[in-house]
Amino acid sequence: MEDRAVERADSHINTSLLIQSLQNEEIDIFRNEFLDMHPYDQASFFKDLDEDIRAKIYLYLSPEEMAALFENLEIEEEDYKDVLAEMNPHYAADMLSEMYADDAVDVLNELDKDQVVSYLTIMDDESAKEIKDLLHYEEYTAGSIMTTEFVSLSANQTVRSAMYILKNEAPRAETIYYVYVVNDEKKLIGVISLRDLIVSDDDTMISEITNDRVVSVSVGEDQEEVARKIKDYNFLAVPVVDFQNHLLGIITVDDVMDVMEEEASDDYSKLAAVSDMDHIDRNPVSAARKRLPWLIILLFLGMLTASLIGRFEDTLDKVAILAVFIPLIAGMAGNTGTQALAVAVRGIATGDLEKENKWKLVIREAGTGLINGGICGVLVTFIVYFWKGNFFLGVLVGVSILFTLIVATLAGALIPLLMHRMKIDPAVASGPFITTINDLISILIYFGMATLFMSYLTG
Amino acid sequence: MEDRAVERADSHINTSLLIQSLQNEEIDIFRNEFLDMHPYDQASFFKDLDEDIRAKIYLYLSPEEMAALFENLEIEEEDYKDVLAEMNPHYAADMLSEMYADDAVDVLNELDKDQVVSYLTIMDDESAKEIKDLLHYEEYTAGSIMTTEFVSLSANQTVRSAMYILKNEAPRAETIYYVYVVNDEKKLIGVISLRDLIVSDDDTMISEITNDRVVSVSVGEDQEEVARKIKDYNFLAVPVVDFQNHLLGIITVDDVMDVMEEEASDDYSKLAAVSDMDHIDRNPVSAARKRLPWLIILLFLGMLTASLIGRFEDTLDKVAILAVFIPLIAGMAGNTGTQALAVAVRGIATGDLEKENKWKLVIREAGTGLINGGICGVLVTFIVYFWKGNFFLGVLVGVSILFTLIVATLAGALIPLLMHRMKIDPAVASGPFITTINDLISILIYFGMATLFMSYLTG
Repeated sequence: MEDRAVERADSHINTSLLIQSLQNEEIDIFRNEFLDMHPYDQASFFKDLDEDIRAKIYLYLSPEEMAALFENLEIEEEDYKDVLAEMNPHYAADMLSEMYADDAVDVLNELDKDQVVSYLTIMDDESAKEIKDLLHYEEYTAGSIMTTEFVSLSANQTVRSAMYILKNEAPRAETIYYVYVVNDEKKLIGVISLRDLIVSDDDTMISEITNDRVVSVSVGEDQEEVARKIKDYNFLAVPVVDFQNHLLGIITVDDVMDVMEEEASDDYSKLAAVSDMDHIDRNPVSAARKRLPWLIILLFLGMLTASLIGRFEDTLDKVAILAVFIPLIAGMAGNTGTQALAVAVRGIATGDLEKENKWKLVIREAGTGLINGGICGVLVTFIVYFWKGNFFLGVLVGVSILFTLIVATLAGALIPLLMHRMKIDPAVASGPFITTINDLISILIYFGMATLFMSYLTG
Repeated sequence: MEDRAVERADSHINTSLLIQSLQNEEIDIFRNEFLDMHPYDQASFFKDLDEDIRAKIYLYLSPEEMAALFENLEIEEEDYKDVLAEMNPHYAADMLSEMYADDAVDVLNELDKDQVVSYLTIMDDESAKEIKDLLHYEEYTAGSIMTTEFVSLSANQTVRSAMYILKNEAPRAETIYYVYVVNDEKKLIGVISLRDLIVSDDDTMISEITNDRVVSVSVGEDQEEVARKIKDYNFLAVPVVDFQNHLLGIITVDDVMDVMEEEASDDYSKLAAVSDMDHIDRNPVSAARKRLPWLIILLFLGMLTASLIGRFEDTLDKVAILAVFIPLIAGMAGNTGTQALAVAVRGIATGDLEKENKWKLVIREAGTGLINGGICGVLVTFIVYFWKGNFFLGVLVGVSILFTLIVATLAGALIPLLMHRMKIDPAVASGPFITTINDLISILIYFGMATLFMSYLTG
């Protein structure tokens, strides 16, 4: 029996049994199997069903049971509206009020304003108020991802009475592993972990074991900053306070993991010039729509490069072979710029760059460009010389690579720093911007030098 | 008093008081302030000190106190060796044995083999054995990041006796919020959360409240897979088992957050063609060393492109204006390929692509390429026509863009899928590979067509 249980755990979802019991309307068999599953597995199963089978599930599960599933549902943001529309509005409102407030807010944020109002009207007053309060906070701030379902205590009571409160609040609180200590004005004064509570004597006063060096985040703080604090301090949750230090809510580690994945995905998308890659697209039109805006911007930036080369048509007419090395030089500029940019963007994102002098970075990048440009330049000079038998051409391409790499590396480091100072997310500019600017710079250097030293090339 | 405590928490580190107490050798003042700080803050303070001041800290703190700091120390991997060398070897060995085994292993992995052996020899036998066991596991597997300091119970006892065990093990266990239930052969049969324990009656049998649908990971599983499970299921920890389901260790959510950041940073670096960006470099030589290998590979790949253009020198000699659009076409190919690649790489990384037919993705990408290629192609045709007054040149560039975008998008999607099937990390190829392949393809299409239809261009 025991070993069988573990074996079953490996497959997690017994899809055929569930489908069969739904089709045969065997409610007990379905509930028995389904409610034994982790809500994440319930949601994975639910996601792939047709609307008519889902309709049965809404009949078989209570709003509370459905809430647990819904909290774990990972579908495209615009699809939440459709799934809610499948439910009876009262069932949907009950389910939303049973969800953790932060998760309910995530769902409601995807609906039209009048739909939100109608659900909040049907909902019980307490949940409606809780959700309304959270709906006010700006996206991507601590306020927008926090939940109000936390446990707080006053300091002048014993561990015994604290444990009693904890047991009562456990079913509703998002975490009971951290308990926050507040004063009479609800200002945050400390934190106790459940670990501290259970190893303490029942008669110990809470004030004796409270850790008053509590790390909190302010309600308007950026969610990325919150994620960094939880990660650095290895917290399971962090309290959220207003500017007068009133305790407003908590943010738990599981919410922060989603933030981390979102932000990493976001930086990655921007480097690759794709907007919003959260989900794999279902059809080419929606995929094209996400990428086309970038491509059109890049197209016009590419036209700039083309018109710059156009200015050197005379030079090109005389020495057509110059064209052969355009992609090489522009490519090296783009690559080295992207490298420098990636280092600077990650440095800003992880906070490593906050701690040191930014000019140091710029000087270091100039050095890096000089070293890499020098090595690559010498290499190219010899390759071109041996290939084309033209020493001056070799030197021209080599020296262009040297200068290009220095300037492109510097541009890659400076642009994100400047954007960060101007309070623009430095990741936005990355891919497209830097590559085009470096295309322009490299072609200016290459053709500028070729035009200047034309006599050596044609001689 | 209470409000003061909160105020102090905001600055976290009172650097000047700490430095002063160290210089004046006021051990009590130092310990009082220092041990009140979160270990992460202790580590941040410690990291920036000179060696002679650190020597005092080793005198003032016990190996156990130092262990907590060391677990939170974020320095370059190669620096651990130097910091350990500053300590008396017995002090270092004691500190390592007081650290959580997984963290101690992380540090020991940075040392030479004979150093590891010498520390393990001085260490107490129990810790040495624990660490030795963990040192065997391959990097990036569940085994390499798990810890053996977990709490396990047998099922046939009451909640009261379980709580008693828990209180005793609390000081040493990495988490007590999940307790694992094992049978006589130490095989994993279930899990109970501390939340379940404290809301249950003291006389309840553990077997009654055990959740037997426990999700576990196998010891050889990839760390990225472990991170995904903890994230999806919102776990605080996950048990690690061997192929016979024996419980070997646990992995906690804080370790997994480090893995997530590492892996995201890794994918990002590869897209930007920089190896290992974990830390901002301190000097240009080490920065150059990380980027130069990529640049040299790219240089040779760029030479391939150059030699391909070289094959069309005759065409170029006749119509030099063709060179003007080389960076535009090659750039568009590189950009669209990188977009498709980024979507495929993220899809593989997040597991979204596992669930669906890969051919569907390829067909969808072909459609995306056709749509974007069509729109950009028509746009380019008109721009070039109006700019240069040459309709055939416009059509040539436009049609090249159309074909290039289709082929480049397909290449961007296919290459990571093929690499994934061949068990190569698809992120490795990204930036450099795809851009160069697409440079070659685009130039072949552009100059191939130009050569074929030369008469229209010169006519």
